Amino acid sequence: MSWQTEALKAKTILQNSIPKEWLLPVNKLPPPDQKNVLDFPRTCGLLNDKELSITDMSATALVAGMGAGILSAEEVVAAFLKRAVLGHQLLNFATEFMAEKAIVRARELDAYYKRTGKLVGPLHGVPISVKEHIGIKDLTCNAGYVAWVNDIAPEDALILQCLHKAGAIFHVRTNQPQSLMHLCCSNNLTGTTTNPFNRSLSPGGSSGGEGASMGFKCAPLGIGTDIGGSIRAPAAFCNAYGFRPTMRRNPCLGIKAPEPGQEAILGVVGPLAAQSIDDLELFQRAVLDAEPWDIETSLVPLPWRRVKENREFTVGIMWDDGLVRPHPPITRALEAAKSQLQAAGIKVVDWEPYKHAHGWDIISKLYYPDSAASQKHLIAQTSEPTLPLTSWAFSYAHPTPFSIAETWALNIARDKYRDEYHALMKTQGVDFILCPAYVGVAAALGEAQYWNYTAIWNILDLPAVVFPSGMKVEDEDLSHVEERSGWKARSEVEAREWRKWWVDPGRFLGAPVGLQVVGRHFKDEETIAAAKTPEAEMANKLLTSEMELASSNVRIPEMDQ
Amino acid sequence: MSWQTEALKAKTILQNSIPKEWLLPVNKLPPPDQKNVLDFPRTCGLLNDKELSITDMSATALVAGMGAGILSAEEVVAAFLKRAVLGHQLLNFATEFMAEKAIVRARELDAYYKRTGKLVGPLHGVPISVKEHIGIKDLTCNAGYVAWVNDIAPEDALILQCLHKAGAIFHVRTNQPQSLMHLCCSNNLTGTTTNPFNRSLSPGGSSGGEGASMGFKCAPLGIGTDIGGSIRAPAAFCNAYGFRPTMRRNPCLGIKAPEPGQEAILGVVGPLAAQSIDDLELFQRAVLDAEPWDIETSLVPLPWRRVKENREFTVGIMWDDGLVRPHPPITRALEAAKSQLQAAGIKVVDWEPYKHAHGWDIISKLYYPDSAASQKHLIAQTSEPTLPLTSWAFSYAHPTPFSIAETWALNIARDKYRDEYHALMKTQGVDFILCPAYVGVAAALGEAQYWNYTAIWNILDLPAVVFPSGMKVEDEDLSHVEERSGWKARSEVEAREWRKWWVDPGRFLGAPVGLQVVGRHFKDEETIAAAKTPEAEMANKLLTSEMELASSNVRIPEMDQ
Repeated sequence: MSWQTEALKAKTILQNSIPKEWLLPVNKLPPPDQKNVLDFPRTCGLLNDKELSITDMSATALVAGMGAGILSAEEVVAAFLKRAVLGHQLLNFATEFMAEKAIVRARELDAYYKRTGKLVGPLHGVPISVKEHIGIKDLTCNAGYVAWVNDIAPEDALILQCLHKAGAIFHVRTNQPQSLMHLCCSNNLTGTTTNPFNRSLSPGGSSGGEGASMGFKCAPLGIGTDIGGSIRAPAAFCNAYGFRPTMRRNPCLGIKAPEPGQEAILGVVGPLAAQSIDDLELFQRAVLDAEPWDIETSLVPLPWRRVKENREFTVGIMWDDGLVRPHPPITRALEAAKSQLQAAGIKVVDWEPYKHAHGWDIISKLYYPDSAASQKHLIAQTSEPTLPLTSWAFSYAHPTPFSIAETWALNIARDKYRDEYHALMKTQGVDFILCPAYVGVAAALGEAQYWNYTAIWNILDLPAVVFPSGMKVEDEDLSHVEERSGWKARSEVEAREWRKWWVDPGRFLGAPVGLQVVGRHFKDEETIAAAKTPEAEMANKLLTSEMELASSNVRIPEMDQ
Repeated sequence: MSWQTEALKAKTILQNSIPKEWLLPVNKLPPPDQKNVLDFPRTCGLLNDKELSITDMSATALVAGMGAGILSAEEVVAAFLKRAVLGHQLLNFATEFMAEKAIVRARELDAYYKRTGKLVGPLHGVPISVKEHIGIKDLTCNAGYVAWVNDIAPEDALILQCLHKAGAIFHVRTNQPQSLMHLCCSNNLTGTTTNPFNRSLSPGGSSGGEGASMGFKCAPLGIGTDIGGSIRAPAAFCNAYGFRPTMRRNPCLGIKAPEPGQEAILGVVGPLAAQSIDDLELFQRAVLDAEPWDIETSLVPLPWRRVKENREFTVGIMWDDGLVRPHPPITRALEAAKSQLQAAGIKVVDWEPYKHAHGWDIISKLYYPDSAASQKHLIAQTSEPTLPLTSWAFSYAHPTPFSIAETWALNIARDKYRDEYHALMKTQGVDFILCPAYVGVAAALGEAQYWNYTAIWNILDLPAVVFPSGMKVEDEDLSHVEERSGWKARSEVEAREWRKWWVDPGRFLGAPVGLQVVGRHFKDEETIAAAKTPEAEMANKLLTSEMELASSNVRIPEMDQ
């Protein structure tokens, strides 16, 4: 059987699952060359005003509305389903809709509320989109590989069980790249997902379907996974919120991926949110309040702590990772964050990156200790084409599998690096690091090659929140081309990443700028709480007065600094 | 250079370190064929009455005494140093004395107390013996390998730093077997350590020097390590207390062992105690109150919880692991424990072992994923002889190193087994498992081959306490030889282990019987608290009326049950 025939099964499942009543005819859709489609839900007529309002609400607000009896779970899930169908037509982000089951569940929740006057749990009626490789009982789970197109999940992934218990509704499953190891989102089953801010840009990856889902507001919350930036890049590329928890906190049972049993560097599962950092916290609290460690014993039995927001902390700003300087819009956002944090009375210092090349050296080796043999074998099984960014990721692999002794040496190097970095943050009194989430804004499709603004925190196993800075690529970002002449790349990698900008910065106009707040190991709760400060400051000062900001004199530092 | 010349360096360090003023001339020592030497401290005249009393006290009592100004740290450490020198002459358990430094430290503590009226910390003035491979700054650290005889530790192991901060004094370092993988204690550097209850028996291993130290009361507390029973076998063999914590709680930085970076099955470091379970808790509290995870970031940041003792729990008694039935004295002790627990109002049920052969299959493979190449290489470096129990342990290794994929499969099998076992304890409502600590009492020297009454809890990563049952091998244990005819071993392994008993049960007369209490994953605090109940019940009912018990009608179950 050809790989195309196999792959078609995934498309068929998807097509059959789309609620036909909400599909718009193709001639009512924006033309394929219309890049920004954010406004379409408002203009297309599919969603009424209440549905538009609902899909603009945070999970926290929705639960409050349902708790007050103002909203029903059914109308909430229906609104997001409609928007998700629309989003899929524009962005190709879904792998399967679960509309009927979602509506049935919503009615159950409404009935429960009517009967008892109470909510089922803290996520009562909240629609959540789910990255495809997070297994759902009796549904296929392909994890982006044609070879797995027929695999059926025997039960719901444990994290879904926890969220279900809290009242969540899963209405749509979302796309991921082949191998799960692109910071973009393309595979041979579902094709390519695009970015709602600009459809010639990537929604990020590997949780790219989630990025699109959040950016287009197809759900207030989504679930992604992250072993090198796969939650955070999509969040940053799509103007959304994303959280990478410390390893062994969120449950991973029932998530399908290549290399099961590989544990030298663990992927994590965590939330993306369309509207607020509070929603990230809501998600985490619901998951950990279910005590998943009492089933998945490799988890750490650390309950989710309720921490109070405070402003008694020090933020170290990392302007540059010492390897690849971020593009101008990112630096501009960091500058703005700095002045707004300072104005808010937060102590801000500079953070010098500590051996990030060394960190990348370790983690890139840990990704494929078997020389990517298991993944290559999966691809070879059906002869599906190896996509360019898959080859790119596989190029991290050592030509031959590591010996047992070599894997041990990498573990030691990893732990030593973690201990050193932790000690450095302590001695410098830095509680959180504010830094880019990526070298630039959303990459052009197929161009996301530089992982180390996110992967570094995976090798260090530090919790990290991505949030929208409220800023977008503006004309002023484009006007600094003259600096090009005075600037010398430190390496071919840096030159490569900057060519992507200089070749035509106009490609990125309107793309949102996400930033990243990183906390100390296992300080997940504090990191989420702390990220609210720059987020709120930037949202207040920027979003609400975007015009003012656009004309402000925020300085872009010289390229040769 | 010959390995003998190299090995001699360790002996020289040891000889030079022994405080000569407390050495007894050989003709004042018991004859080499005197097996039980427990009484010698009382009869030899080296220790005065106060010193004898001090060395009979628990760490908890000693700290109370020092806190009340009744005892000085100097007299405490001097008493234990004397007893340790004596113990070493009889049992060959030490690798190095640190008398001078210990006395200096004791004086500092006394001065501090005199100045402030306060104790330095919860372990103020408590002498602790330390297994040799736990590094001490500027001292050699050979971990039982001649190849490492010249290695100098660059700093104190982190656990020693924590204990030092709490006021502990390290006065003697203790012996371990070649490869650290015997349940006995013999190497080519220090020779063989013996059991103070019977010098033809093993003190257990690999923390065998610690077993002897506790059994002879050379310290109230000791530090051992355990990857298959290495804390618990010595505790059981030597009538002492031992605790195997859940992995990633106690700090391991600075502990030298082969296979650094191997993490599929982690060794743990933990306490042994001569006098009480309370001392195990005292040790753990002191270590974790120092928050070692803020330095060694691979640790789990779980503070040591203060739990209250209660009797609202269910104990499952595991009479037999389904593979090798324990010897008669062990079964007799379990029977006694059962009736005493029931009399104390504790709910007691039977616990059926769940796939212990499978558990052993996994852990024995995880011990040597590189086919023991790294250890064999260490031995080959100096051509020191491979001792029989080293060969025995190496025989667990697969003939060739595992592939990366094979190691991943083992990790998956391990986690699945852990989850299943945990679920089984939950569904059966069993909070703690009471079971043998070994197939028999202290093994004859060189005969300890069956690991799975302890190693099973390593692969499951469950916390486990070993405590003395208060019982010893009695004449009545020897009188059941008639059962031999009706009994068929289930396997060659079981036959082998029973031959060791039947060949001459009299070899074990007077050997103490230890038992083991196992709790759930990360329930370290509860496990220590729960172990106090059987311990106290057995101590009350047995030790204080030993004669009565000896003549009681405790039933030994039929062999063919």
